[in-house]
Amino acid sequence: MERSIQALRIDGARLWDSLMAMASIGATPAGGCNRQALTDEDKQGRDLFVRWCREIGCEIRVDRMGNIFARRAGTEAGIAPVITGSHLDTQPTGGKFDGVYGVLAGLEVLRTLEDKGIKTRAPLELVVWTNEEGARFSPAMIGSGVWAGEFTLEYAHSRADKSGKTIGEELARIGYLGELAPEPGPVTAAFEAHIEQGPILEKQNETIGVVTGVQGIRWYDVTFRGKPCHAGPTPMADRRDPVQALAILCERLYSEVKAYSDDARMTCGDLRAEPGSRNTVPEKVVLALDLRHPKPDGLEHLHRTLYRLAEQVEEAAGVTIDVREEWHSPPVQFDESCVAAVSAAVERLGYSHRKMVSGAGHDSVYVSRVAPVSMIFVPCAGGLSHNEAEFAEPAHLEAGCNVLMHAMLDRAGIA
Amino acid sequence: MERSIQALRIDGARLWDSLMAMASIGATPAGGCNRQALTDEDKQGRDLFVRWCREIGCEIRVDRMGNIFARRAGTEAGIAPVITGSHLDTQPTGGKFDGVYGVLAGLEVLRTLEDKGIKTRAPLELVVWTNEEGARFSPAMIGSGVWAGEFTLEYAHSRADKSGKTIGEELARIGYLGELAPEPGPVTAAFEAHIEQGPILEKQNETIGVVTGVQGIRWYDVTFRGKPCHAGPTPMADRRDPVQALAILCERLYSEVKAYSDDARMTCGDLRAEPGSRNTVPEKVVLALDLRHPKPDGLEHLHRTLYRLAEQVEEAAGVTIDVREEWHSPPVQFDESCVAAVSAAVERLGYSHRKMVSGAGHDSVYVSRVAPVSMIFVPCAGGLSHNEAEFAEPAHLEAGCNVLMHAMLDRAGIA
Repeated sequence: MERSIQALRIDGARLWDSLMAMASIGATPAGGCNRQALTDEDKQGRDLFVRWCREIGCEIRVDRMGNIFARRAGTEAGIAPVITGSHLDTQPTGGKFDGVYGVLAGLEVLRTLEDKGIKTRAPLELVVWTNEEGARFSPAMIGSGVWAGEFTLEYAHSRADKSGKTIGEELARIGYLGELAPEPGPVTAAFEAHIEQGPILEKQNETIGVVTGVQGIRWYDVTFRGKPCHAGPTPMADRRDPVQALAILCERLYSEVKAYSDDARMTCGDLRAEPGSRNTVPEKVVLALDLRHPKPDGLEHLHRTLYRLAEQVEEAAGVTIDVREEWHSPPVQFDESCVAAVSAAVERLGYSHRKMVSGAGHDSVYVSRVAPVSMIFVPCAGGLSHNEAEFAEPAHLEAGCNVLMHAMLDRAGIA
Repeated sequence: MERSIQALRIDGARLWDSLMAMASIGATPAGGCNRQALTDEDKQGRDLFVRWCREIGCEIRVDRMGNIFARRAGTEAGIAPVITGSHLDTQPTGGKFDGVYGVLAGLEVLRTLEDKGIKTRAPLELVVWTNEEGARFSPAMIGSGVWAGEFTLEYAHSRADKSGKTIGEELARIGYLGELAPEPGPVTAAFEAHIEQGPILEKQNETIGVVTGVQGIRWYDVTFRGKPCHAGPTPMADRRDPVQALAILCERLYSEVKAYSDDARMTCGDLRAEPGSRNTVPEKVVLALDLRHPKPDGLEHLHRTLYRLAEQVEEAAGVTIDVREEWHSPPVQFDESCVAAVSAAVERLGYSHRKMVSGAGHDSVYVSRVAPVSMIFVPCAGGLSHNEAEFAEPAHLEAGCNVLMHAMLDRAGIA
């Protein structure tokens, strides 16, 4: 038996087919996906996922955050499940793999075990977490966050998109406001497969990243308030121009972030000017800012740099700058035994690999607060993600899925 | 007769009351006006204007651009009209006086002549020009522009707002798509009263600005195209970030514009990032830019500076920067005889005054291409305009209206 388990492999072609089937929901003309959280497209994707899971005999439960749990029973009572999963929602101009791969790799593991008639001692649970991207509703990873106790259910339900629709309303509308309380029971181990979303594995020509942790993230809304005036008659010296303040602050912050460390990240993802008329100096400009660093003191340094520069520019430009922190996800160290299970599986399977820290936030960050966790990365073309051109090689996706299966079997135990 | 005409004055209280009545249409909680071109509010404002003109016996005609002409007959056949007017549309967060003052000052002149039974040899025409602000539809001053031959009617009708609705559709919807061809006949003289929209008259404690011309304006859409990528894993050195390019370009352009001349103006009125998700480097950012200078060579210098900096930043930031000129309104010199008529009226009425160049574009810019024109400015509080707090003193508004009346009578001739 041990020998046949060692030889066990998933079906790479079937994994690819299910990825492409899911990608057809919310497909964009440029080859990407727009399947934002709790939209009609997200509902379609969820429905397809649920159907696939029921076809292999899984029991489906949905919690009040819309997180979906597909359970494959274990043979021994009283053992906590081994869980895996990720998210099906995408960025507005997202790709076919971010999140979806982790969900469908888990599905492919369950299908393979079902095909081969392999039972595990611990139950296996495959999870779809709600609104990981944070693109439609802020903050990101809110489904796993509520489950892990980071946010209250009331807070999460009240979060609104740009048009004012809330998570609570939209969950009910698409039929995924479940009955289950969003809270964890005991978990034996949790794993999440994901594309790297960065260039390192590809550059190093390695197949698997054994993920030891996730860098810290802080999100801010930075509001620059000036004084609206007519574009023509008002002398430049008399103006309080929020766009000028924005330009100066961003220019300095980019410089300081880059100079501080190669590990530091700064992203200005959204800009909005009000009233937004060409011949009027705007009353205000709002910047959606994302700062990241793998170490707590590094992230704290970036945070303090932002506040220091905002204060300097505020004084120099005569514009009020309000920096409001929207979200803080500190750096995370994954569980040593789970990292070891992934390492052991990679070694056994013979894939080239490296240990690495994730640059992106993942549901595993919150899951790691209540369960032992690790992640498995595979390369993506050009390191591109959050981009319609996002791509991963079928062979890499297959390899990552094999690692996931063997790490899960290692922790769940063969019956 | 000559003596009684010299003593003729408008009714300042009635002028104020009509300004406040018009300001109640589209009034904002902050005390301003939102009566953008061809909205339901604009229709209400136009309807009120037409009713007021009919009450004093004016004949109303509307052209295919929605420009409204209210005519008070003259006593001699064959003399071209003396015209005055401005616009009733406002910025989204506009004030009560910009444009509206010029229209209602003209109305108050006609009402005063009617009250006193004064006839003029030339007909008088009071005009409301469509979409002067350019806030809802670009470019600005399109109603007077079509009339004066600057734009074709087809071009103007096809211009769309942010939601895709066109000027042609919206004119028809609100019932102001007239039958008249939008083209000028002969004009004896044209005058436009307006608030200054800048701080000079107030600072110098002067009541009237005799306007000798208008500074030149160039409008641009500047599009920065980068490469979308995930906010976390992608190293800063690997990014092509359009927001960084925007920040650098704006920071340099503000510096160069300010250093070049006190007369130069730069306004970044609107900013838009796509896809606009906090944890994704945007694919593109679009900046709506307005550059101004009173002299042709000064404006040309600003134009060349923009293109030079865009090229430099494009190379340094690895981002494509597309500078598309949207509109060019060269500096204008008003007609000497019309300026002299305004000067003579001010002298006779005894108001403090100065000659000045307008910083803002006005319908008079286009009218001046086909008719002799001058303008009359009155101070506004703090030089503020395109702002809900825009304010002008009743005494100044009354003075400007008296100057308008006497300049018009001077050119129209008393019957």
